[in-house]
Amino acid sequence: MPDPTGPTVAELGEFPVIDRATAGRRQPATTLVGPGHDAALVAASDGRVAVSTDMLVEGRHFRLDWSSPQQVGRKAAAQNGADVAALGARPTAFVVALGCPPGTPVAVLEGISAGLGEAAEEMGAGVVGGDLVQADQVIVSVTVLGDLEGRAPLLRTAARPGDVLALAGTLGRSAAGLALLLAGHGGHPDLVEAHRVPAPPYAAGPAAARAGARAGTDISDGLLADLGHIAAASAVAIDVESALLGPGDDLRAAAADLDADPWEWVLTGGEDHALAACFPPEVALPEGWHRIGSVRAGAGITVDGRDHAGPGGWQSFSR
Amino acid sequence: MPDPTGPTVAELGEFPVIDRATAGRRQPATTLVGPGHDAALVAASDGRVAVSTDMLVEGRHFRLDWSSPQQVGRKAAAQNGADVAALGARPTAFVVALGCPPGTPVAVLEGISAGLGEAAEEMGAGVVGGDLVQADQVIVSVTVLGDLEGRAPLLRTAARPGDVLALAGTLGRSAAGLALLLAGHGGHPDLVEAHRVPAPPYAAGPAAARAGARAGTDISDGLLADLGHIAAASAVAIDVESALLGPGDDLRAAAADLDADPWEWVLTGGEDHALAACFPPEVALPEGWHRIGSVRAGAGITVDGRDHAGPGGWQSFSR
Repeated sequence: MPDPTGPTVAELGEFPVIDRATAGRRQPATTLVGPGHDAALVAASDGRVAVSTDMLVEGRHFRLDWSSPQQVGRKAAAQNGADVAALGARPTAFVVALGCPPGTPVAVLEGISAGLGEAAEEMGAGVVGGDLVQADQVIVSVTVLGDLEGRAPLLRTAARPGDVLALAGTLGRSAAGLALLLAGHGGHPDLVEAHRVPAPPYAAGPAAARAGARAGTDISDGLLADLGHIAAASAVAIDVESALLGPGDDLRAAAADLDADPWEWVLTGGEDHALAACFPPEVALPEGWHRIGSVRAGAGITVDGRDHAGPGGWQSFSR
Repeated sequence: MPDPTGPTVAELGEFPVIDRATAGRRQPATTLVGPGHDAALVAASDGRVAVSTDMLVEGRHFRLDWSSPQQVGRKAAAQNGADVAALGARPTAFVVALGCPPGTPVAVLEGISAGLGEAAEEMGAGVVGGDLVQADQVIVSVTVLGDLEGRAPLLRTAARPGDVLALAGTLGRSAAGLALLLAGHGGHPDLVEAHRVPAPPYAAGPAAARAGARAGTDISDGLLADLGHIAAASAVAIDVESALLGPGDDLRAAAADLDADPWEWVLTGGEDHALAACFPPEVALPEGWHRIGSVRAGAGITVDGRDHAGPGGWQSFSR
């Protein structure tokens, strides 16, 4: 937790807090007009802009006793960056609206802003604008812009029977980390870190679009749930081959410690923000992608040809 | 208030709520890929995109016993649309992240979504994406994209001594409406409506940029506060001439009813989302704009050459 003895947002006031939270921010060349105006202006090189938005809520999507504010900011950037990567685009800019109680230490907002800024910079993107308002809990609402650089977008509606289902990135590590935190288990720091700060394979989205992939999505609700969105939108069936995505040794070890099933983490755990895409069979998979299944005529998701029994994935309003 | 006997968000579940809230949405030709994918894709005709974000919080920026959900959605669209208009851009697309408690009637979210969609459509823009999450209060976080269509952006940093200060739109009507609501006064429905649903002069922003205005802003925190941002960013002084912006008869009548000062509403009331811009002296003001003052060498804001005593405008963390 940041220093609770520092000033609160109400003590410092809106504009000084914004000044402190945005001090030292660097902008890439694509930021044509940065913060400090009513709106920002960002380059959209091919005359189109990809856009996606996600809201993170304290106590629901993050806990400030489990994650540092920087980690929360990085997570918000990762979650949004993965969405435009899933379309095949490169993130170019973020805007962030922050809500918080007046007694929130300024250091919390500085940390969130710093984490978001660092993660954006690593993607080559800028944090170009924002808003700061009073709310009952800490709310981080991020919108990302992306540039397809002339590529065709990967759509959930575009999978066809015969396509190869491929994955870039990891599955189940964030879910394992969350389970470890919930259990108060002190081990497996790499898995806990994967929960606190996901590391989506941003470059794999543009690479898939360049190679000729048709359909894509990021795995944010769980593999089976997100593939279910593609299957429904494309009116196809998708089969996942378990032999191609077995849990790694560290997931198995953590599952053994917690008496849990590592397959549940792999198949239904969200928040790693891996990318899944459907490639025409004649396409050679680009670097970072490996086959995990196939697209068939029909409907629904199967694992090794059978329905999966168990929870389907993340739901925003589950209890 | 919407029907409290209808289903709640938790009863219906995330995806059916999204389906209901987005049913029947129309998209303009600039929406190249609409909702239903990880990200949307929007045309950016001149290779640049304007972007701005604002968060509205229940109990802070709106009350559902004072405004219908539709009005809240329209207000969120107006507030964001005015920000890109202030830059000189035309709104092209909105994304909206909604947070709400699980017991929120689905009708509230449908109403907010409908109001946002109607307002966007009136601007020629689409609502191209969103997010729905659980939160302790209703949160409406909107990001708008805009198209400058080749025009130079109006910046807060660009005012110069000798410029003409001009206004498009109204001042103080939203503040008057809020005062009437707070006092429980049943009259002056036009002013109350101005508070519930501001009507910014969207087209005036692009018109000003086309005519050659240099600096611009929307009046969201109050005239003096927002001009103060331009004066500080441009290192100039700005003088407002009271004779050019006197309160109208309806503001004076409401002020008399409430024993209030209509000038406070005009000078420090935010949320009408009028636009202010600084034009070089040789420029003929375009339709919808009228002169209200002048830009001079120096620093700070004056009214008729004198400092204004009184509150400066909206602060996000005032008590």
